[in-house]
Amino acid sequence: MKKIAVILSGCGVSDGSEIHEATLALLAIRKAGCEYSVFAPDKEQTDVVNHYTGATVQGKRNILAEAARIARQKALPLAKLNPEEFDAIVLPGGYGVAKNLSNYMYKGENYSVIPEVEQVLRRANELKKPVGAMCIAPVLLAKVFKGCRITLGAVSGASEDVEKNGAEHIVTTHGETVVDEKYRLVTTPGYMLDANIEHIAEGADNLVKELLKLV
Amino acid sequence: MKKIAVILSGCGVSDGSEIHEATLALLAIRKAGCEYSVFAPDKEQTDVVNHYTGATVQGKRNILAEAARIARQKALPLAKLNPEEFDAIVLPGGYGVAKNLSNYMYKGENYSVIPEVEQVLRRANELKKPVGAMCIAPVLLAKVFKGCRITLGAVSGASEDVEKNGAEHIVTTHGETVVDEKYRLVTTPGYMLDANIEHIAEGADNLVKELLKLV
Repeated sequence: MKKIAVILSGCGVSDGSEIHEATLALLAIRKAGCEYSVFAPDKEQTDVVNHYTGATVQGKRNILAEAARIARQKALPLAKLNPEEFDAIVLPGGYGVAKNLSNYMYKGENYSVIPEVEQVLRRANELKKPVGAMCIAPVLLAKVFKGCRITLGAVSGASEDVEKNGAEHIVTTHGETVVDEKYRLVTTPGYMLDANIEHIAEGADNLVKELLKLV
Repeated sequence: MKKIAVILSGCGVSDGSEIHEATLALLAIRKAGCEYSVFAPDKEQTDVVNHYTGATVQGKRNILAEAARIARQKALPLAKLNPEEFDAIVLPGGYGVAKNLSNYMYKGENYSVIPEVEQVLRRANELKKPVGAMCIAPVLLAKVFKGCRITLGAVSGASEDVEKNGAEHIVTTHGETVVDEKYRLVTTPGYMLDANIEHIAEGADNLVKELLKLV
């Protein structure tokens, strides 16, 4: 049974992992006959957002403890993720990618990826393990894999920013994937588009299918 | 297009709604060609659990604000749920059902359902609107609808408690549903059993299918 590592960035679209994308990635992995393990950085979130009002609120939350809500207590610290033990890696989206796994939210085109994530991605590439990314998570790939081919859905500020970083951005619609054969990357737009939950399920299924072709 | 109201109890299995059950209920509703609206009580959670360690921790969280993480900011206060505006109601599981929508976690067989939820369920029944419940959420039905027929999966302390309250408990396995034609209820065991996320998806799909037959 193939094993896929899923890297989360919290729990909730506005300050962590987008829950539908994360949950439907886990489901897609199981449906494809694979196992998953969930990882997240064991450190504080950059901020906490009240998802009813949309306001940033006081309080501290740990990214791993929140990600474990989606994983049902079976999450592990990202520092323990050894790409040698997995066949592929999947990164769901959500603002947590831009706030907790990188500083894209604050730095725009001059963003950087946190070292823990960058190291995992570089090691995966050395080992020829494919990486899938949904929604905004392809920005992580654009920074680490120079000149890679990815999608963020439609043309947007984000797609222009990854192009400024040397990536090739391919426009896609709901459920579609873009494959980069050189770096072994698969990306799908998820909620970067005005999608509904069925589109997210379709995108997650297609992403995992394409990812397994690259294993 | 039929409209289904989904009542959540927070965000995360140990102190709120079980995320896979909630997300896959929303997906099942969309796949069945229906729309959903998400509701949750606008009040503080009974407790907050660190889902990585399993420990109860300090801090206050609002049930509605947390539920809005699953709903992607489109949740509404439960007080605004008028069953006349919907064709059916769905209650996913998670400890939030036993901690926030009732006091079953603390009172065992002598539990009560919070008035906001009880009123919605009684009004739905008067209007002949069907109600679906996953995992532990059928305990709410057992208290409100005397003598109803439900499942909580296997025989357990919980199944004995609902029987003591006059309910008929039917043993089920993964993905199965129990239909109560009299009260128009559909229940499925979800994570009351040692299930995986594929089982949850199957149960959610079957629950919504059976629910729509009762509309």
